[in-house]
Amino acid sequence: MTRRSTALLTDHYELTMIAAARTHPAAARPCVFEVFARRLPDGRRYGVVAGTGRLLDALADFRFGDEELAAVGEFLDGETLQWLADYRFTGDIDGYREGELYFPGSPILTVRASFADAVVLETLILSILNHDSAIASAAARMVTAAASRPIIEMGSRRTHEYAAVASSRAAYLAGVTATSNLEAARSYGVPSAGTAAHAFTLLFTDENGPNELAAFRTQVERLGLGTTLLVDTYDITRGVANAIEAAGPELGAVRIDSGDLGILARQVREQLDSLGAHRTKIVVSGDLDEYAIASLRAEPVDIYGVGTSLVTGSGAPTAGMVYKLVEIDGIPVAKRSSHKESHGGAKAAARIARRSGTVTEEVLYPWDAPAPAVDGHTTTGLQTPLVRGGDPVDALPSLHGARDHLRDALITLPWEGLGLSHGEPAIPTRHAF
Amino acid sequence: MTRRSTALLTDHYELTMIAAARTHPAAARPCVFEVFARRLPDGRRYGVVAGTGRLLDALADFRFGDEELAAVGEFLDGETLQWLADYRFTGDIDGYREGELYFPGSPILTVRASFADAVVLETLILSILNHDSAIASAAARMVTAAASRPIIEMGSRRTHEYAAVASSRAAYLAGVTATSNLEAARSYGVPSAGTAAHAFTLLFTDENGPNELAAFRTQVERLGLGTTLLVDTYDITRGVANAIEAAGPELGAVRIDSGDLGILARQVREQLDSLGAHRTKIVVSGDLDEYAIASLRAEPVDIYGVGTSLVTGSGAPTAGMVYKLVEIDGIPVAKRSSHKESHGGAKAAARIARRSGTVTEEVLYPWDAPAPAVDGHTTTGLQTPLVRGGDPVDALPSLHGARDHLRDALITLPWEGLGLSHGEPAIPTRHAF
Repeated sequence: MTRRSTALLTDHYELTMIAAARTHPAAARPCVFEVFARRLPDGRRYGVVAGTGRLLDALADFRFGDEELAAVGEFLDGETLQWLADYRFTGDIDGYREGELYFPGSPILTVRASFADAVVLETLILSILNHDSAIASAAARMVTAAASRPIIEMGSRRTHEYAAVASSRAAYLAGVTATSNLEAARSYGVPSAGTAAHAFTLLFTDENGPNELAAFRTQVERLGLGTTLLVDTYDITRGVANAIEAAGPELGAVRIDSGDLGILARQVREQLDSLGAHRTKIVVSGDLDEYAIASLRAEPVDIYGVGTSLVTGSGAPTAGMVYKLVEIDGIPVAKRSSHKESHGGAKAAARIARRSGTVTEEVLYPWDAPAPAVDGHTTTGLQTPLVRGGDPVDALPSLHGARDHLRDALITLPWEGLGLSHGEPAIPTRHAF
Repeated sequence: MTRRSTALLTDHYELTMIAAARTHPAAARPCVFEVFARRLPDGRRYGVVAGTGRLLDALADFRFGDEELAAVGEFLDGETLQWLADYRFTGDIDGYREGELYFPGSPILTVRASFADAVVLETLILSILNHDSAIASAAARMVTAAASRPIIEMGSRRTHEYAAVASSRAAYLAGVTATSNLEAARSYGVPSAGTAAHAFTLLFTDENGPNELAAFRTQVERLGLGTTLLVDTYDITRGVANAIEAAGPELGAVRIDSGDLGILARQVREQLDSLGAHRTKIVVSGDLDEYAIASLRAEPVDIYGVGTSLVTGSGAPTAGMVYKLVEIDGIPVAKRSSHKESHGGAKAAARIARRSGTVTEEVLYPWDAPAPAVDGHTTTGLQTPLVRGGDPVDALPSLHGARDHLRDALITLPWEGLGLSHGEPAIPTRHAF
């Protein structure tokens, strides 16, 4: 795929701040910026870091070429434009690994560079982490709610066409099984899957009326017995009968996309079994969110198809992360007015766990201080090097690695932290500075 | 900017449905698909159509090249791949013009083509219209709430990096004044604007502590008196005093980003006036939505900066539009099971208005029937040709044209339709078929 410059995915004020600061001696001093969320979305117990891999790709394409410079030439002076033309990030970035859990205040990303070098990345960093983490955080709850049943992400049509691709990636990271989105399959290797739409069945309408059986026969003939037939275009009972008539009892699956999914799943299971189609699976879809998924846990549902709620973060479409200057030349700095107070100084983060593996708290402490120790507990640092001198470090975790990491990390939460009910963060965060 | 193929911004099942239907005689018949929203987001009075211009651009880039074909080769047969390689949309598209109001059931877009030609566009069409319309619909309420005060859209960091660009465009269409997003400025000519971040002020901290005055002096020296100084990093009263000390009474504006914005705006206005800075404007920002904007109407606020709530649709991040097959070869078709019923048949749409210009209802009627007439009222058709034989028609309205159209359309609503309170759609929709 052609690579595009990501440099203009940036706020106007980042560049005017550079124009203002660039020649001032203050701008040459080493700065530390941190990304964190002040709070989790209402009632959520944990967040999931996602987007780090995409961010490192976008960083490599953050270059002001002629077209980008022409676009900002109107409001910037020539020296600033030259600075932008020469811009390459040469600083260091550390961060929670992709797929890690986070809590209020967790320093998810730490950027070390001069003021201008670091501030110019603010918007891009936040856009990617805020979006992808919001989706992954919602998706992880759905995966938990589904227990071990597979979920197909099929929400592309309900979000921006490129946000859809990133959503598929974030959902897969969170444990979703497959996506409907073909660009996500190409770009990130997410397995793609699909069933059929009502339009396909409706197409087989002629002067004699609808002909669902003809639609099903055609689909099975062309796509094989393993296909999924959508049985709720007309009457579901008739639809199931037609499905098995068309495919026989070895049909892969049927999908129900409307109505009371729990009742229908039971009826359809009984009907399939009565027709000898014991191995034909039942896919359900239609405005499912984590609560609806959980409510179907006792029903004979084999696969969930989830759309809108997944790609919109199930009520929390952004993670609300901010990018704050916390240290200049070793001096802690923080905004002091009003309620938006921040803690100055670069922060290290560790998670404390019982010997059983269950985590008990997250501790934030000065970057250069020793990691805190708690009697009878283990301490695990949360930050890893991501970029050194502008280049990604070797052996960054893959998307699959991030997926595995999250699965393991969720197991370390106290059991109530995996509940869907509203509550406090699963573990407290202690500020040891 | 390099143009990328949009063909994989598509769901897996669109292509397998094509593989299944392609060689069947049914697939050659002319089909009509319609885009509509079954309902408006909870309590909203109207929706705003947005994204049409972006959709027509994306349609031109909907081509399966070698890379795209390689990505889908695993699950499609050779003939289907050849069909995709040859694919060019050659059908017709009509639609509500961009910037038009819509209501439940409004046939916003009507696509006429063979089944395969039309179904392959479903995901792309819905992604773009659902996202952009959600943002424009929320932004229009904010613009109304702001009365005639300008709004700067600054939410890029709270949404996907490319959704941010589309959000800026949609917000501008809805009457927002400017954007922080530089790619939106380049791609769509949206005016860009910006102030400064707390990090800029914090940067001027040294061993003697913070030095807000030095920060302000530097910003004014480099960016001119017209700049906006962010005065709430430390103490706001001190900040305003420093701002005027640095710039004098001709300073362009100050920004307040936290705290009780109403109270602070009054205090800051008094202070500015007492310092002779009568023309220095006050910009407020910080978690503003349409309700917070409205609540500041009596306060001396000159400009609103709006972020998160705008780019997330203020509680409704997707417009929930669907793409439904409604007619095949002149035969109306519709899904019949459960509660998701649709009205078959291609629909025309008109809005009925009093002679005063106030609209009273929207009427949907058969595509080939005469427009309904209501005594003493005017009837205005809502659909215009967008694509003929695969090519965009000449003289499509520009983004500025869409912006003007929406401004005029909002004036036609009954007065209660512009209220922020929850309620029914501003006008009823009558189904005359």
